[in-house]
Amino acid sequence: MQIAVIGTGMVGCVLASRLAGLGHEVAIGTRDPQATMSRTEHDALGTPPYAQWAAEHPDVRLLQLAEAGAFAELVMNASNGANSIKALQGVGAENLAGKVLIDVALPLDMSQGMPPMLTVANTDSLGEQIQREFPGAKVVKTLNTVFCEVMVHPERIPGEHTIFVAGDDADAKATASQILTSFGWPETSVIDLGGIAGARGSEMYMRLYFQLATQFGFDVTIQVKNADTAES
Amino acid sequence: MQIAVIGTGMVGCVLASRLAGLGHEVAIGTRDPQATMSRTEHDALGTPPYAQWAAEHPDVRLLQLAEAGAFAELVMNASNGANSIKALQGVGAENLAGKVLIDVALPLDMSQGMPPMLTVANTDSLGEQIQREFPGAKVVKTLNTVFCEVMVHPERIPGEHTIFVAGDDADAKATASQILTSFGWPETSVIDLGGIAGARGSEMYMRLYFQLATQFGFDVTIQVKNADTAES
Repeated sequence: MQIAVIGTGMVGCVLASRLAGLGHEVAIGTRDPQATMSRTEHDALGTPPYAQWAAEHPDVRLLQLAEAGAFAELVMNASNGANSIKALQGVGAENLAGKVLIDVALPLDMSQGMPPMLTVANTDSLGEQIQREFPGAKVVKTLNTVFCEVMVHPERIPGEHTIFVAGDDADAKATASQILTSFGWPETSVIDLGGIAGARGSEMYMRLYFQLATQFGFDVTIQVKNADTAES
Repeated sequence: MQIAVIGTGMVGCVLASRLAGLGHEVAIGTRDPQATMSRTEHDALGTPPYAQWAAEHPDVRLLQLAEAGAFAELVMNASNGANSIKALQGVGAENLAGKVLIDVALPLDMSQGMPPMLTVANTDSLGEQIQREFPGAKVVKTLNTVFCEVMVHPERIPGEHTIFVAGDDADAKATASQILTSFGWPETSVIDLGGIAGARGSEMYMRLYFQLATQFGFDVTIQVKNADTAES
């Protein structure tokens, strides 16, 4: 399948790499490809600059947002949640219409430090905002409750665990679930939260997630990340 | 220990019964004891009227809020979260000063049906509101993430699971943890979320909890409840 991943951060790169490895034709969408390629600094999380990653992943193309949208049969939003609506406007409503839009983004507000607040919560969610802004897209909120390496390699966490899907379109959720299964999530681990308002539950849970990470360090996720680095 | 449980709903009764069974001297606090005793209807959750429960639990006294506060060495808030500040004002700041106040309440807004919204979230929490309103009390937020029968009998859920504590006073958290241990929570299951702002994490998680209950029914909790009824 032709899949566009929106966002050049750690989450976007991990998803793109895994999808390409599974045989999909993958493009990453960004506002200004030239600017993205010319970045030389590591980001706040220590992620190397995109150009370095791109050199190691020649099978993943970097496209301008609207080009990525036109290319895609399915879109995954891995952009900064606080900026996702704007990024998806760049992709274009016409390029999202009729397509499955898998939203993994977190609406984090880091302005007060860690743990972050959410830019939207309780009476609304990012998943719902995206669905309202792009009524022609079939939005499925999923994967947003786990670290990105766990999204695409759930077996790295021992024992049974759970991943949530929420969305208004049953066929779109079935498509998203197929992608989850291809990542290694057992079908029985995929929990359907119902309509897109279910995104409120999985997004608001992230306060506890980041609270724990702030309290105990990101050791668990770092271990997972290092396991991946060692492997590749 | 002399413990006052604030709130005559299902959660308050389950906590009071368990604490009395563990040898504590327990009073339940309510705004108007006579009105509470004269109720004859089951509540929205099917809980029998308080007088019926009281007849089966002669070891638990029913007191007016301020009397319960004066009686208590330790207070547990199991009142309706949307009304907790008012209930605790009835208990009295002077009766809370210097005491451990274990807050298990959920700030639920049921006005839009299920799953509920929260009356406070993201930028604040009920636990923080209570601590600000009663600066002399040592507020510990805990037990609010599980069904009440699981609060007091964690072994009913198979496998390892976790209970959170959050509060600004380390000694108060140690006292709360001792009560958790007496309920059956292994010490290693008690996760310290840090200061009282950690209540944001455990309270916001409840959207997902009620989302799941709404989507799949309350079967799990009902099974736990029936097991309790059969046992007693």
